[in-house]
Amino acid sequence: MSHDPSPINQDFRRAAETILGQHRIKSDASDREPYEIDFWRQYRGRAGLVLQPQTTAEVAALVQAAQTHKVALVPQAGNTGLVKGGIPDATGTAAVLSLQGLNKIRAIDPTGDFLICEAGCVLQDIQTAADEAGRFFPLSLGSQGSCRIGGNISTNAGGVNVLRYGMMRQSVLGIEVVLPNGEIWDGLKSLKKDNTGYDLKQLFIGGEGTLGIVTAASLKLAPKPVETVTLWLPVLSPAIAVELYTLFTAKMGELISSFELLTGFGLQAAIDHLPGVRPPVDSNLPWHCLIELAWSFDEGLMAHAETILQSAFETELIDDGAIAQTTQQADNMWRIREGQSEATRHIGSILRTDISVSTQAIPALINTVQTAVDALPSAITLLPFGHIGDGNLHFNFLLPPDDDTPQLRGQLLDLLYDQIDALDGSISAEHGIGRLKQAAMLQRKSATELTMMRAIKTAFDPNNIMNPGVILPSPAAD
Amino acid sequence: MSHDPSPINQDFRRAAETILGQHRIKSDASDREPYEIDFWRQYRGRAGLVLQPQTTAEVAALVQAAQTHKVALVPQAGNTGLVKGGIPDATGTAAVLSLQGLNKIRAIDPTGDFLICEAGCVLQDIQTAADEAGRFFPLSLGSQGSCRIGGNISTNAGGVNVLRYGMMRQSVLGIEVVLPNGEIWDGLKSLKKDNTGYDLKQLFIGGEGTLGIVTAASLKLAPKPVETVTLWLPVLSPAIAVELYTLFTAKMGELISSFELLTGFGLQAAIDHLPGVRPPVDSNLPWHCLIELAWSFDEGLMAHAETILQSAFETELIDDGAIAQTTQQADNMWRIREGQSEATRHIGSILRTDISVSTQAIPALINTVQTAVDALPSAITLLPFGHIGDGNLHFNFLLPPDDDTPQLRGQLLDLLYDQIDALDGSISAEHGIGRLKQAAMLQRKSATELTMMRAIKTAFDPNNIMNPGVILPSPAAD
Repeated sequence: MSHDPSPINQDFRRAAETILGQHRIKSDASDREPYEIDFWRQYRGRAGLVLQPQTTAEVAALVQAAQTHKVALVPQAGNTGLVKGGIPDATGTAAVLSLQGLNKIRAIDPTGDFLICEAGCVLQDIQTAADEAGRFFPLSLGSQGSCRIGGNISTNAGGVNVLRYGMMRQSVLGIEVVLPNGEIWDGLKSLKKDNTGYDLKQLFIGGEGTLGIVTAASLKLAPKPVETVTLWLPVLSPAIAVELYTLFTAKMGELISSFELLTGFGLQAAIDHLPGVRPPVDSNLPWHCLIELAWSFDEGLMAHAETILQSAFETELIDDGAIAQTTQQADNMWRIREGQSEATRHIGSILRTDISVSTQAIPALINTVQTAVDALPSAITLLPFGHIGDGNLHFNFLLPPDDDTPQLRGQLLDLLYDQIDALDGSISAEHGIGRLKQAAMLQRKSATELTMMRAIKTAFDPNNIMNPGVILPSPAAD
Repeated sequence: MSHDPSPINQDFRRAAETILGQHRIKSDASDREPYEIDFWRQYRGRAGLVLQPQTTAEVAALVQAAQTHKVALVPQAGNTGLVKGGIPDATGTAAVLSLQGLNKIRAIDPTGDFLICEAGCVLQDIQTAADEAGRFFPLSLGSQGSCRIGGNISTNAGGVNVLRYGMMRQSVLGIEVVLPNGEIWDGLKSLKKDNTGYDLKQLFIGGEGTLGIVTAASLKLAPKPVETVTLWLPVLSPAIAVELYTLFTAKMGELISSFELLTGFGLQAAIDHLPGVRPPVDSNLPWHCLIELAWSFDEGLMAHAETILQSAFETELIDDGAIAQTTQQADNMWRIREGQSEATRHIGSILRTDISVSTQAIPALINTVQTAVDALPSAITLLPFGHIGDGNLHFNFLLPPDDDTPQLRGQLLDLLYDQIDALDGSISAEHGIGRLKQAAMLQRKSATELTMMRAIKTAFDPNNIMNPGVILPSPAAD
């Protein structure tokens, strides 16, 4: 037990103890801590309690009790979110409802192309289960060893295969949800086509736990890629990267799984700070593309890749490049890309963002931001990297150690977001809103859109107990 | 002018005349008729007026007037819907709001992979515009020469390429909507990734015009298929068809655009009743698969197809089959498939349905229904055809001419839907609910789901002026 008097409603606590027993309720500070701190350890809230249900029925009973006692619930799966959407605020009046105990794969049907699993399943375990059944689950992101599918669904996760397979949304056939009133909605259909009324699951996908708690899902599986080709192509500029993307799209069509961009600076950071990473090619060029192609045949794709590379050499888009010849070489390339956030942390303070525009607008965006940053008195390095094929960059900035101030961070965000607005882009391509981007969202959405969003929140959660203050501000704070 | 006294609210009529002028308001019976009768000419309603706006602003002004005078609006695009969702009821108190005058393609961006068009654009014109820009718009269905994109979006249309490209929903990047209060929501983003709050467009996609009127959309374009291979494979049974589907999926992965099934009876109907249609192969087998493969390379896919066929011959899944050698041969195959509804109309009365289950459940479904139908005193022929790769069949029945009664139709529907329920399938895979399937939907959805649907309808359209009685019954009728 904590020595602080707990701010959590004590009637709710007793009700929760009746449902879960004391052993699946955590209130000691050290037990609570992993649920209170965000992935980058930048933000910390306080959980009045941490609840650890193991079944959908237990989740429903807890939600009913929270509704009775008007206690706020913060649903949390793998706690790898980046926008303060899965940790509680500082008051300690909310309970974190952890989904980690709901971790069963309930069914897998390779012919029907679906897998049914609970919200607490780790993404990588789902990938493995699909693979063992001769199918492929395409969602793939840096945190796949620790993120959990309930969080992936509630944030509509993106990652490195979106170009080919779409966001998480496109892989969800059906969901089971505990609604704010404690009812269980069994929307666990596993059909590829079902046009019977409003597609309600779409509200919970990307709803960040504010409309209900996703407890299980039926996920769509894809055919397994057999031959995979991974390429590393240094380029002179983002404009050349976009030309290369256009060339690959024209020749390869839908066989491109990933088309990623990063900086030479970011590559060097990975070489310097990630154990075992080696340069994929010997090149001093300032930008690098990582491309992955795949199909279901045993062989022949490498030859197609070589033909395109030849054409890229002849048109002088590239003057060097590597095709991975072994799994180790491909893994090394991906380690550089996936390790960008981790590697650049070692260099200094990073301002992280997650924006999207149309792919062809990316070169101008980078140039404009570079020019604006050059005019600032501080020495700031641009570190954009990400999914150029999706128009989505993690447009990060390396801040000078002696000048990492909230003012400078705000100035850089304003500068970047102004350009995003001018290009009709998004200030959150794949991370969501949470609490972190709420103000930026409120500034940008029309009154018409915000009114619709509030109407939905009110219709589903009139007492505002479900992750209050995430996405939309709580009404009192309006 | 009609000689009947018009039941439409006359204040609304005057307001509409102010907005559109008299020449874009139709009230004569002969002018109204094309908007009052459904595609199969089975159902007829009465439109108090037909409104013909040409801009989003005009649509908004008309909706405001309808809100002021509490007049029901029935949005209509190409009027090719099959569930009485786009024609008015019989009272004549509702106005049909035709979107056909909003028919501009506003923008096309091949590098950004998007096209922005208005709701009244004909689907085939959008396909052509994408093609001319070097891209591909994948939605494809029998009525593509007359259906319009606003209707395709509002019904979440399916068609023959869903296996590869998904339903209409997956091709919509953003929409512009006139809301029931007359406000215009500019949700016309063209981004592949945008996680900034609830994904509101998903409610209007498949919302059948009950939450607002879609006036424009940004559509996602795909890489253009270059080599296409079309195959016709007669099989002994639906179970063999599913085995064949499994084989093709394992070998071809995502290169399968369509995997369709039809009956020998349906093939013969096409040969007998569709001008110019010829048998693709000389076979008396009772079932036939039509398969289309495509990729972005110039050649080589035909050889892959031949390898799979060889394997299907060797494992005795098939003993005959044709690969189209010319565009004419491929067109002939598709004419048979797309002409199934038209061809079988010539034979007798058809009971049409649109169901889905998991693909591997289809053989048992067909067998069970056949057994149940055999036990009936009437001589009924099963005519299922459709998208077996999606688990979606138009499971139709040919009724005896002397026994086409509502009782028999009801009996057959009950018999089929009982099996669909047992298999956790859908009674409307791609056509929607409209008025036609409302009772069947209400019987099947949980109270929890219906309550959510009603809450959304009430939040968006509290006065129930937007396509009332479609999907959900009007409150008075509850």
